[in-house]
Amino acid sequence: MAGNSFGQIFRISTFGESHGPAIGVVIDGCPSNIDVDEAFIQAELDKRRPGQSKITTQRKESDRVSILSGVFEGKTTGTPIAMLIPNEDQRSKDYSHIMDKYRPSHADYTYQVKYGIRDYRGGGRSSARETAARVAAGAIAKLLLQQHGIQIFAHVSGVGQIEAPNLDTSDLALLLARRENNLVRCADPAAATEMTTFIDQVRKSGDTVGGRISTIIQGVPVGLGEPVFDKLHADLGKAMLSINAVHGFEYGSGFSGSAMKGSEHNDIFINPEKKADQLRTLTNFSGGIQGGISNGMDITFRTAFKPVATIMTEQQTINQEGDQSMISGRGRHDPCVVPRAVIIVEAMAALVLADHILRANANQINPILPKDDDK
Amino acid sequence: MAGNSFGQIFRISTFGESHGPAIGVVIDGCPSNIDVDEAFIQAELDKRRPGQSKITTQRKESDRVSILSGVFEGKTTGTPIAMLIPNEDQRSKDYSHIMDKYRPSHADYTYQVKYGIRDYRGGGRSSARETAARVAAGAIAKLLLQQHGIQIFAHVSGVGQIEAPNLDTSDLALLLARRENNLVRCADPAAATEMTTFIDQVRKSGDTVGGRISTIIQGVPVGLGEPVFDKLHADLGKAMLSINAVHGFEYGSGFSGSAMKGSEHNDIFINPEKKADQLRTLTNFSGGIQGGISNGMDITFRTAFKPVATIMTEQQTINQEGDQSMISGRGRHDPCVVPRAVIIVEAMAALVLADHILRANANQINPILPKDDDK
Amino acid sequence: MAGNSFGQIFRISTFGESHGPAIGVVIDGCPSNIDVDEAFIQAELDKRRPGQSKITTQRKESDRVSILSGVFEGKTTGTPIAMLIPNEDQRSKDYSHIMDKYRPSHADYTYQVKYGIRDYRGGGRSSARETAARVAAGAIAKLLLQQHGIQIFAHVSGVGQIEAPNLDTSDLALLLARRENNLVRCADPAAATEMTTFIDQVRKSGDTVGGRISTIIQGVPVGLGEPVFDKLHADLGKAMLSINAVHGFEYGSGFSGSAMKGSEHNDIFINPEKKADQLRTLTNFSGGIQGGISNGMDITFRTAFKPVATIMTEQQTINQEGDQSMISGRGRHDPCVVPRAVIIVEAMAALVLADHILRANANQINPILPKDDDK
Amino acid sequence: MAGNSFGQIFRISTFGESHGPAIGVVIDGCPSNIDVDEAFIQAELDKRRPGQSKITTQRKESDRVSILSGVFEGKTTGTPIAMLIPNEDQRSKDYSHIMDKYRPSHADYTYQVKYGIRDYRGGGRSSARETAARVAAGAIAKLLLQQHGIQIFAHVSGVGQIEAPNLDTSDLALLLARRENNLVRCADPAAATEMTTFIDQVRKSGDTVGGRISTIIQGVPVGLGEPVFDKLHADLGKAMLSINAVHGFEYGSGFSGSAMKGSEHNDIFINPEKKADQLRTLTNFSGGIQGGISNGMDITFRTAFKPVATIMTEQQTINQEGDQSMISGRGRHDPCVVPRAVIIVEAMAALVLADHILRANANQINPILPKDDDK
Repeated sequence: MAGNSFGQIFRISTFGESHGPAIGVVIDGCPSNIDVDEAFIQAELDKRRPGQSKITTQRKESDRVSILSGVFEGKTTGTPIAMLIPNEDQRSKDYSHIMDKYRPSHADYTYQVKYGIRDYRGGGRSSARETAARVAAGAIAKLLLQQHGIQIFAHVSGVGQIEAPNLDTSDLALLLARRENNLVRCADPAAATEMTTFIDQVRKSGDTVGGRISTIIQGVPVGLGEPVFDKLHADLGKAMLSINAVHGFEYGSGFSGSAMKGSEHNDIFINPEKKADQLRTLTNFSGGIQGGISNGMDITFRTAFKPVATIMTEQQTINQEGDQSMISGRGRHDPCVVPRAVIIVEAMAALVLADHILRANANQINPILPKDDDK
Repeated sequence: MAGNSFGQIFRISTFGESHGPAIGVVIDGCPSNIDVDEAFIQAELDKRRPGQSKITTQRKESDRVSILSGVFEGKTTGTPIAMLIPNEDQRSKDYSHIMDKYRPSHADYTYQVKYGIRDYRGGGRSSARETAARVAAGAIAKLLLQQHGIQIFAHVSGVGQIEAPNLDTSDLALLLARRENNLVRCADPAAATEMTTFIDQVRKSGDTVGGRISTIIQGVPVGLGEPVFDKLHADLGKAMLSINAVHGFEYGSGFSGSAMKGSEHNDIFINPEKKADQLRTLTNFSGGIQGGISNGMDITFRTAFKPVATIMTEQQTINQEGDQSMISGRGRHDPCVVPRAVIIVEAMAALVLADHILRANANQINPILPKDDDK
Repeated sequence: MAGNSFGQIFRISTFGESHGPAIGVVIDGCPSNIDVDEAFIQAELDKRRPGQSKITTQRKESDRVSILSGVFEGKTTGTPIAMLIPNEDQRSKDYSHIMDKYRPSHADYTYQVKYGIRDYRGGGRSSARETAARVAAGAIAKLLLQQHGIQIFAHVSGVGQIEAPNLDTSDLALLLARRENNLVRCADPAAATEMTTFIDQVRKSGDTVGGRISTIIQGVPVGLGEPVFDKLHADLGKAMLSINAVHGFEYGSGFSGSAMKGSEHNDIFINPEKKADQLRTLTNFSGGIQGGISNGMDITFRTAFKPVATIMTEQQTINQEGDQSMISGRGRHDPCVVPRAVIIVEAMAALVLADHILRANANQINPILPKDDDK
Repeated sequence: MAGNSFGQIFRISTFGESHGPAIGVVIDGCPSNIDVDEAFIQAELDKRRPGQSKITTQRKESDRVSILSGVFEGKTTGTPIAMLIPNEDQRSKDYSHIMDKYRPSHADYTYQVKYGIRDYRGGGRSSARETAARVAAGAIAKLLLQQHGIQIFAHVSGVGQIEAPNLDTSDLALLLARRENNLVRCADPAAATEMTTFIDQVRKSGDTVGGRISTIIQGVPVGLGEPVFDKLHADLGKAMLSINAVHGFEYGSGFSGSAMKGSEHNDIFINPEKKADQLRTLTNFSGGIQGGISNGMDITFRTAFKPVATIMTEQQTINQEGDQSMISGRGRHDPCVVPRAVIIVEAMAALVLADHILRANANQINPILPKDDDK
């Protein structure tokens, strides 16, 4: 109800402020007997953590996660999985200059009016630091999805006005290797170079810039998603829009599809496998989802991130007493969030799919079973 | 859980298939002592109903709503409000030709595989007819919002490649009058003419086309929206994406904002009222929402609709046995959904805001009270 | 949130007031492809309806149910099942004498203060008439449970100070036949006669009396119930306590178990089937539930109903203005609710079990499958 | 969904196993600006912790709680409050003898069959150690209730066949002092002595015994509780039944009320304050709740606890392979749970009331405001 939980059956609740003792997450509803690969969870967090490169914030956080419950002898037990990530770099003094000022396009003002109090240090609960907890939970979700043969891949497809060309998505492992081979996490090497140069230039000017992330999900069975309100793309959209700085979401043909005609846009069914419940479509403007339910084709969507609000140049603002004031960013901030947000996008997508696999099992006749026969 | 309910406190559950006896909705959580204007509810439904004009479907449905519970002597009692809309035009024979064929880019295939059964008549539960129930519930939500001085206005801002110019939104009543003065429900008269001509031409060619709807909400108090996952724009986004045919959602600066720099995009606070909890911003790239919480500025968002999948020309497809087949639309369908979808967008927005007003009262120190002192 | 829904996956929402046009229920989350036996649903309602015998209310309601959605060609489709029961006998004039008076031990006063308005006719929403909607939904749940080989049997085990002896429960069909063979729905013939005579005598004196219902559920698989808060007996307890007039719930050894020692109370495991996951226990003080999870033994519980508050003799009370007044029951009321409540108890138990079967499938490794191999 | 969360608006999620690194709780939905008295929270935990006296388990746990989030400068901020209690005494070797045996009347067997895996150490998640997290959350709920002038008092009213006489409840502070003045937490000194002697004797014989706890809640405003399914007593009943070892719940007149006649049982309204919305009743068989909604009278209920299943004498059982085996309790266990359970009962009651205060504010016209005018 107060908005710190996500998911219906595979349900996470995150907690913690940017400069409190720790952040963390509780997962309730994870099935039992899933092998928990702690190194994998940490590796996911490492992709999100600050201080990775010259184009991310220099804040130092090792983001070491520990599992407090729900795992016994390396396997999930079906009980809540609690994970804790201590906050190490709590230089609270950095924030005394914004203690009573509302940073433009941040959440300071709205939190203050809504709650009558706020932990102003680093944005408190509104800080994107909270997303580390999502990444930890998303890693568990990915372990579940692996058993079903589902793969999620996101990469930076746009920064400012730079747009990466469409990818050949026939080999996700190759794309992943390419993505991890550059600072900006774009799977197109030429665009990646251009983006990196641009972000570095923006950073040096004390400014920030927005960007776009494209996601493709492969191996999704037919039948995920619940009509009417919990359509798979509606839940994916909410998941993405809940990530800090996201201002837009589209799936399949998206906004450009709204300019097309039906005769161009319809995805024609074919049956290459000669199995009536494993059809394919010639095109995929539907983005792998029809009537809110996955149709077995690749799920595709795109997410737009606004530029980071904290800039290094001086801006006018209002303080808590309502008086005019000046403010400028200090210290350690990202010039562009998308390189680190790639892993957050993947985590949220994994949480949505894990939840919908379990939901599908609850009320349909064809259970979504793991592909691993040993399970 | 099975996806037919929406909202946390002001919660609706819809039911009914396109060609069953009736569709309907139950609202649980509506506060007591709200005056229920039945004529208003019917007028809202009339804006959505089929057969309005030459550019909408010719299916004949009067969509008469009756209230079964929750209202006593013209006022809500705090108990569930059930509303029923009988289906009148149930020409089920129209659908025998698609009984065992999967219409391209429809939900026939995914429903069949997910549930192992489907009511094929008119799409059954996946039909947009379900949205009439949302409009009825949305009308009650609007009555609640009126007491808080909140106004919602949506209009068609794009059809195919035609884009309406930005509106002066200082007078919503004027815009509403202009919108209702043309068949396509665009508040810009010149664009409306162009759109209407285009849709009619598309219709005559047996084709369909997509479009875009823009929404503005005025009078919203500061403090609606719940961090972290239930950000106001995340819930609005899910609401919009749950509407049939929607493929994209953006708020404030949206996708175009992701191409901007922070120094351009930040909304500078000002305090014209000299009240520390009633600030304004010079620009509104935030779309009235910061950190997921309304900041008192106009809330703005845009929704993209794909072209209607039912076209009048013949298309290849696969039938339920997995064999190749041919199919073509018959009878009565919309060439473009956006003129009728305007009211659905408003209804879903109203449901989100009504829910968040009640949610805000639950856990914040500043209750969101009706502006009407008599209440 | 406003309390008119029950269940997590198999979820019902009821609506309607005693003297409005209709009452009804929407079931969301019922699996697809369940055969819907409408005659069975009606037969269940007939066991609850008023006017059955001299010891029940003489209000005339045929309680004819119609299904509005979610069923196609005799089978559930996985979409919401809406059922409607029109109110026929709406003699609202009967209630003008209580329009502004608070009936003792009724909900008139609390509803009025909570909501500032109430439908005073027949108690409005607080009327036990609402339970007809539960019985209709419970009938669908029973159809689901039949596929799993689960049988629910409740009967009146106490009226006033009369207590029926313990039953031999080896043949539920026989007990059901005995129960339906008397007006009071007690499966012990001698006790039934004594109870019927007593209730009739109480009725003639213008008074009412309370009673107790005992329930036994057979064929429950191991594994239903969710720790920690949603223990199976906790959900059964809430279900029972939500029925009008219920003041107590106990399962297994219940209150008397709290007077025992551990050495007497422990249920010793045995393995007659020589299957490690199908153990039995020598005794069943656990009532078929251990750690909140069903253990495969019979589930047993008991529910206490207070005497009906509407009596035919004159009582002192307070009116809506706060002034003293006199009141007495008129017309048609039950002298004792338990004979009709038996079917409500069964319905609520069925709803809890159906929900927990679906919940169990969501997060455990051993799916709870229907026993019918054709499914 | 998986049962580790409780409450709708004031919602807690607990996590942790008996012998894992820690147990804990996340509260989401606590209003902002409540003063958090950490010493009070610890004092509540101290009343539940093991090793208090000769009649409780000798397991040594200091149960030190730390707050990880949601509190800033001594006040709640409206964000999730996470609290952690490390497990200190993790003598896991104690449990090797039960690693593959099912303890009678414990949850070993049902967890193993449900999940296919279990943390056998000390019962893992099914251990009553989990209730420490509830007590910590309940302490925060009590701080909220204090602002509304609501007081909760529970005490041991029965052990085995010993029953304490009814209390004069006009002075809860006095009763509390008396309760804390003896080991068994019974507010009647003579009964307390008898109970203590009896429990000590049972302990020495290697056996255990059940008991009963009575609760009274004073200062509750009219209007808490939601019809139809979320009646206040239904939610209290579920809360109590979710506590380990509880087998029965009754409120107001309870089971004995079911033997009464309506003319005896009805609570006659009076208006001593001459305020139409602050009536009282001459008797209180309704237990302060009518139609599921609080009526302003004292709320009263009683909870029955079965005897502890772990006894020191040898019992027959079955092991995980299905073979017969022998087992006997070792080490440190409670001979009777009720002395420590008193504070758990209070905590769960506080959680229910806090949740219903916030729920009441969401959909009724009369907000339930704190009595402290400074708030």
